Amino acid sequence: MFEKLKRTKVFRDPLYGYIQVDYKIISDLIDSKELQRLRRIRQLSGVAMVFQTAEHSRFTHSLGTYQMANLVLQNVDGMENLSEYEKVLFLIAALLHDIGHGPYSHAFESILDVSHEEMTVKQILSSDTEVNQILSIKEGLAEDVASIISHSGKYPLIESLISSQLDVDRMDYLSRDAYFTGAAYGHIDYFRILRSMIIIDNKVCVRASGVHSIESYLMSRYHMYFQVYYHPVARSYELLLESIYKRIKELIDNNINVDANIESLLNVINSSDDIKSYINLDDAYVNGFIKELTNSNDKILNRLSNSFMNRNLYSFVDLDDDPDLSFKDEIFKKYTKEELKYYYLESIVDGVAYSKFKKNDINDIKVLLPSGKIKSLDEYSPIIKSLRQSSYKKIERRFYFE
Amino acid sequence: MFEKLKRTKVFRDPLYGYIQVDYKIISDLIDSKELQRLRRIRQLSGVAMVFQTAEHSRFTHSLGTYQMANLVLQNVDGMENLSEYEKVLFLIAALLHDIGHGPYSHAFESILDVSHEEMTVKQILSSDTEVNQILSIKEGLAEDVASIISHSGKYPLIESLISSQLDVDRMDYLSRDAYFTGAAYGHIDYFRILRSMIIIDNKVCVRASGVHSIESYLMSRYHMYFQVYYHPVARSYELLLESIYKRIKELIDNNINVDANIESLLNVINSSDDIKSYINLDDAYVNGFIKELTNSNDKILNRLSNSFMNRNLYSFVDLDDDPDLSFKDEIFKKYTKEELKYYYLESIVDGVAYSKFKKNDINDIKVLLPSGKIKSLDEYSPIIKSLRQSSYKKIERRFYFE
Amino acid sequence: MFEKLKRTKVFRDPLYGYIQVDYKIISDLIDSKELQRLRRIRQLSGVAMVFQTAEHSRFTHSLGTYQMANLVLQNVDGMENLSEYEKVLFLIAALLHDIGHGPYSHAFESILDVSHEEMTVKQILSSDTEVNQILSIKEGLAEDVASIISHSGKYPLIESLISSQLDVDRMDYLSRDAYFTGAAYGHIDYFRILRSMIIIDNKVCVRASGVHSIESYLMSRYHMYFQVYYHPVARSYELLLESIYKRIKELIDNNINVDANIESLLNVINSSDDIKSYINLDDAYVNGFIKELTNSNDKILNRLSNSFMNRNLYSFVDLDDDPDLSFKDEIFKKYTKEELKYYYLESIVDGVAYSKFKKNDINDIKVLLPSGKIKSLDEYSPIIKSLRQSSYKKIERRFYFE
Amino acid sequence: MFEKLKRTKVFRDPLYGYIQVDYKIISDLIDSKELQRLRRIRQLSGVAMVFQTAEHSRFTHSLGTYQMANLVLQNVDGMENLSEYEKVLFLIAALLHDIGHGPYSHAFESILDVSHEEMTVKQILSSDTEVNQILSIKEGLAEDVASIISHSGKYPLIESLISSQLDVDRMDYLSRDAYFTGAAYGHIDYFRILRSMIIIDNKVCVRASGVHSIESYLMSRYHMYFQVYYHPVARSYELLLESIYKRIKELIDNNINVDANIESLLNVINSSDDIKSYINLDDAYVNGFIKELTNSNDKILNRLSNSFMNRNLYSFVDLDDDPDLSFKDEIFKKYTKEELKYYYLESIVDGVAYSKFKKNDINDIKVLLPSGKIKSLDEYSPIIKSLRQSSYKKIERRFYFE
Repeated sequence: MFEKLKRTKVFRDPLYGYIQVDYKIISDLIDSKELQRLRRIRQLSGVAMVFQTAEHSRFTHSLGTYQMANLVLQNVDGMENLSEYEKVLFLIAALLHDIGHGPYSHAFESILDVSHEEMTVKQILSSDTEVNQILSIKEGLAEDVASIISHSGKYPLIESLISSQLDVDRMDYLSRDAYFTGAAYGHIDYFRILRSMIIIDNKVCVRASGVHSIESYLMSRYHMYFQVYYHPVARSYELLLESIYKRIKELIDNNINVDANIESLLNVINSSDDIKSYINLDDAYVNGFIKELTNSNDKILNRLSNSFMNRNLYSFVDLDDDPDLSFKDEIFKKYTKEELKYYYLESIVDGVAYSKFKKNDINDIKVLLPSGKIKSLDEYSPIIKSLRQSSYKKIERRFYFE
Repeated sequence: MFEKLKRTKVFRDPLYGYIQVDYKIISDLIDSKELQRLRRIRQLSGVAMVFQTAEHSRFTHSLGTYQMANLVLQNVDGMENLSEYEKVLFLIAALLHDIGHGPYSHAFESILDVSHEEMTVKQILSSDTEVNQILSIKEGLAEDVASIISHSGKYPLIESLISSQLDVDRMDYLSRDAYFTGAAYGHIDYFRILRSMIIIDNKVCVRASGVHSIESYLMSRYHMYFQVYYHPVARSYELLLESIYKRIKELIDNNINVDANIESLLNVINSSDDIKSYINLDDAYVNGFIKELTNSNDKILNRLSNSFMNRNLYSFVDLDDDPDLSFKDEIFKKYTKEELKYYYLESIVDGVAYSKFKKNDINDIKVLLPSGKIKSLDEYSPIIKSLRQSSYKKIERRFYFE
Repeated sequence: MFEKLKRTKVFRDPLYGYIQVDYKIISDLIDSKELQRLRRIRQLSGVAMVFQTAEHSRFTHSLGTYQMANLVLQNVDGMENLSEYEKVLFLIAALLHDIGHGPYSHAFESILDVSHEEMTVKQILSSDTEVNQILSIKEGLAEDVASIISHSGKYPLIESLISSQLDVDRMDYLSRDAYFTGAAYGHIDYFRILRSMIIIDNKVCVRASGVHSIESYLMSRYHMYFQVYYHPVARSYELLLESIYKRIKELIDNNINVDANIESLLNVINSSDDIKSYINLDDAYVNGFIKELTNSNDKILNRLSNSFMNRNLYSFVDLDDDPDLSFKDEIFKKYTKEELKYYYLESIVDGVAYSKFKKNDINDIKVLLPSGKIKSLDEYSPIIKSLRQSSYKKIERRFYFE
Repeated sequence: MFEKLKRTKVFRDPLYGYIQVDYKIISDLIDSKELQRLRRIRQLSGVAMVFQTAEHSRFTHSLGTYQMANLVLQNVDGMENLSEYEKVLFLIAALLHDIGHGPYSHAFESILDVSHEEMTVKQILSSDTEVNQILSIKEGLAEDVASIISHSGKYPLIESLISSQLDVDRMDYLSRDAYFTGAAYGHIDYFRILRSMIIIDNKVCVRASGVHSIESYLMSRYHMYFQVYYHPVARSYELLLESIYKRIKELIDNNINVDANIESLLNVINSSDDIKSYINLDDAYVNGFIKELTNSNDKILNRLSNSFMNRNLYSFVDLDDDPDLSFKDEIFKKYTKEELKYYYLESIVDGVAYSKFKKNDINDIKVLLPSGKIKSLDEYSPIIKSLRQSSYKKIERRFYFE
């Protein structure tokens, strides 16, 4: 049905040894402009400011997610029942799931009105992209891939393997980010997880005997979030970038000229359908215009840009740590109200709690008992139950310029 | 104060790269008969029946515990305040803490009236041992080492570093057992733990910024207990051995001859002060007499021994898994009441819950906030709090001969 | 053709993650008495005296060799052409190849007139063994397995994969011994090697593009031999054991009673066909009778046994290191001629050079050029050529009691 | 003498666990603009086109080299004799040794008349740089650091530890590049190397007992060169960039306008003393102007740039592999003489042989025998001798556009 390569193509990868490509369409998609662009966007944006070796790109994660999908096909009981079309669909969705990411993604999304998932869908469906042209060899394929990314419900099993509590995306990035940061948590035993998974009634279940590997995986995730992704220095760097975007938008809304060449950025802000401009945006693009902005006439933009370039990040305190908050008075005296919008930020991270471990969500993982009965994971595992509760913990921080 | 070797002696070790010995007394103790005996006793007894590579000895763990003590001295803030005498005392206690272990330790303790800690103390203090002779170069040294093992309270800081929630013993064995079993859990980030530890008022504290590494360590411990140490196949093997001991004792109490050469064993049962016989006991000794017992005239002993030698272990069910318990009726018909004492066993593992995470105990770990205040760990970390509660979970199993 | 298990059986292994068993016959063979006996024989004998963590058994290596054969079947181009019978034959031969090993194998072979390969064949063919009974489910199977072990030429491809320059035995033990000793060499990139291998005309070739992985593998082997297997302390321990055997034989030849229970050993010395006695021999057996011999009335045997038990190994010098040889005069004065036969040994290790890298042998590895031509490895790789020459280097050592 | 930080600063690193900074001057240098610029220059340039995870920057290697210097100070016998000034000098030189690198360094040097070492020296000595300002706290310090980089002979021991056959630079990058590419070679046992090193008469020697670790290290180096650094795809990418530079230069020399904003580049070509422009050059800068050149009016530059951006790399053949060279005729017909200068390239890599293993150079490593005598490494080790000879092997390749 899908053409195979004459000889399996392999990519060396530190996590899996090798990433194997058998289908021509996968090989073509890897070579497409849209996927190659991900080489120029770092996976962890500001995290490299604190874990300096976290310099890996979204491209390597995309290949890794594809490989994890391969491993699911090879190791999970029940996946052998998928048709070849469904298998390749799964592999393609895994490979392409991140092409909609912009540079420094989280800050970037703060000024757009579309999510990166929507941008992924747009690129898959737009006839302007190489990805779309490659997919068009088979009628309906592009639409099916897009339907998986947008969770339309047409292929529920594949959708849940691409994005859920236990998906190929997370299984790759937790291990990968751990490897490249050097963090000791995050080494998940994915082979054991795969072996404990089983497809029942088109749904992903976990055998009771393998629940410990899931507990360990969720614990790793918890630690990676709090220790790496939400590290205050990384957050400070991202907030600085958000402030820059916010300021640019404010100037533009007031018809004030921004002293930098940001045409593609403005095009995208004006229309998220401008795929051509979108593809132009990468980490170097952002660094480039911020470098120009270091000479901006707008005092605030000038300060923010210089801070970004020279790593003069915001200072911060955690409210949990019983901090001395007297600095606030000083700051409120020192800066104008307009400046304070950019120079003093109240940040609450409770995202993990809510979006990552929220009640309905985690119940998605089903446990298969030896007797054949099925229980929800947090009914079965007291550890998970309490982990879910603890992760509701909010981290409240104050970031500010001294 | 203590003589140093002319050149540092090193032992290659897969976990630490090298284990370094600088003091002559440490080198002499390593060469002593009592420590060399630990080469002949496996660290994990029956676990090798299920994780076949878990063949490492208590000797390698003893060296590893010594090295972990070395790392504590080099990396933990506050340890620099110990005198040289205290430092060497700590190293010696770490090295010797396990010399009292018998072969297949847990089953073995079931027939003795003394614990392995008491046997360690006896060996340190008995003038019959090489260890005692080596320690006697310094007056009071043997007594001080013994006092640490028996928690007498003379050196409370060293005692807690040798045996508490967060001690050099556990930090070595969790990593080591994970390495040799190939279990994916148990890889603890000990360097980070050491860096987060700080001695305040002669007590071990953990900086708030390092609490995540402790959470991860306790989670690893939890997994190692339930996945490795309490694995039902390993337990089945140990219970079989316990039954053999129990039967031997019963026969002896009834003046029935046991058809094997078990003189040293009987000596030790009669008097735990018979150190010379005790040192004779190792894994090969146990395997040896059980091999002889496979020809025993006592029907029960005969069956148990043959089962042990040929790995015909007990079958088992977990009550948690909603098992079909009808097998019980059959078994109760099949065997005599006397036989059932050995062929049908009700086992409850709640040890972890109680002895490892019990409330007062875990509170031993103190957290140092940036403000200088000190909190208990489970007050500070909701994960730990819930982990402590979950670990109260009992595992109830039935083991039986079909 | 061969019955499959209902569910794949897995063994956790630190090197491969998991060892997978699909065939019932493999599972039965693993449970046989002859294979289980290998749990009681250490892979590296005296090496644990210098690399203390090298305590792994021949059993784990046997499982590993089996798994490596599995990986060859799954990854090497051309292996798909074997029949199912040949594939299972290969797996069985890999699993059983070491069952003929005695305890402390090299020293042991010094008193027997048969090699361990011959003992393996005898066990496979003897109707007294469980292994033979299991194999007899298929006529001719036992004979075919034996023919592979004894290199009869019936299945040349499988023979070369079981024992040649590049075989499943070596690929497992180099990695495994490196893992368990903690030696840094010996980490071979077996997946890359497997991918570069290709079967042409029933012979194993290596693609030119993969020659570097073979160079690296041979270099690892070279280092493991000189740094681990021939380590002077390990050698000293083995020579001590050889001396004990030699002395026992001398006493027996002179009808002098040896003061220990060594019935099984004598049976085997008298007839290598006494499989039942042979199977009784394991590490504990050897340690056991040497312990008894520490009280021997024969002065020489007494000294040798005590030295063995208390690790008072021979001293040694390497002639390469320009040593001071004046000790020899002293020693020759101190000991009688009879004693010197045991107390002063001249050892030359040139085994590697000759048997491992000998000219004809290494030429076995063939290189496949992109043009389709085939060259011998050392014609193609100058590194290998010189490695072969360097490995002819003899290590001359003198071992002696001071 | 040098101010210490109040609390040791640590950087997480996957290779060493942690990189530790104790001196304020080191911390300041890390924060300098010149070192931070290395975050924006990849260590391995085009290698990421074939090993996609090789995305790490020169910044992480610089920190790693500094840490390796730290490890040398802590572990190598004889280093304790250096004064504090010399120790810090060594650490600084290790940290700064690469600041002179431009983006895509090798291609870049092809159009400059100065080497990256000279550029490093210029930055250290120029009063325009932050690095120079930080060093000026101590008179003569900047000059001393520069003297080490330029091998002036003032501090011969430190010079050889910074750059020789066995230096902190190579020891870090071999391990680091292996880690980030996922290549299996290159895992060097640096701790063992450090322990075997000893300073005698102000020169680095290696104890005879440690020669195997050096053999292994040199073998790793050999493999990394041929398998990673000289990989034909990586070379093809670099040659493409060289062609672009060459074409730009040719156009400029002929006063033809280059259709891109390359002011800083031209400044540097005109004067390597223009440090300010130099610091502006990073990977994004190069990618930026090549993106502009994809619309160039010069047909050759247009093609080269588009090939670079879209990874249409040169095809290639190795003369060693007996290739069919008939393609040459076709190509010579297809392209003009001017085009052929850029579209058909003859490349000979014999660099390793000559510059890395050249006779006099390798003799720098001295071996200390137990007797106290000193030999040259290749006199002592036949492996090294032959490795040196084999590495003279030239790789001749033809790269071309089809």
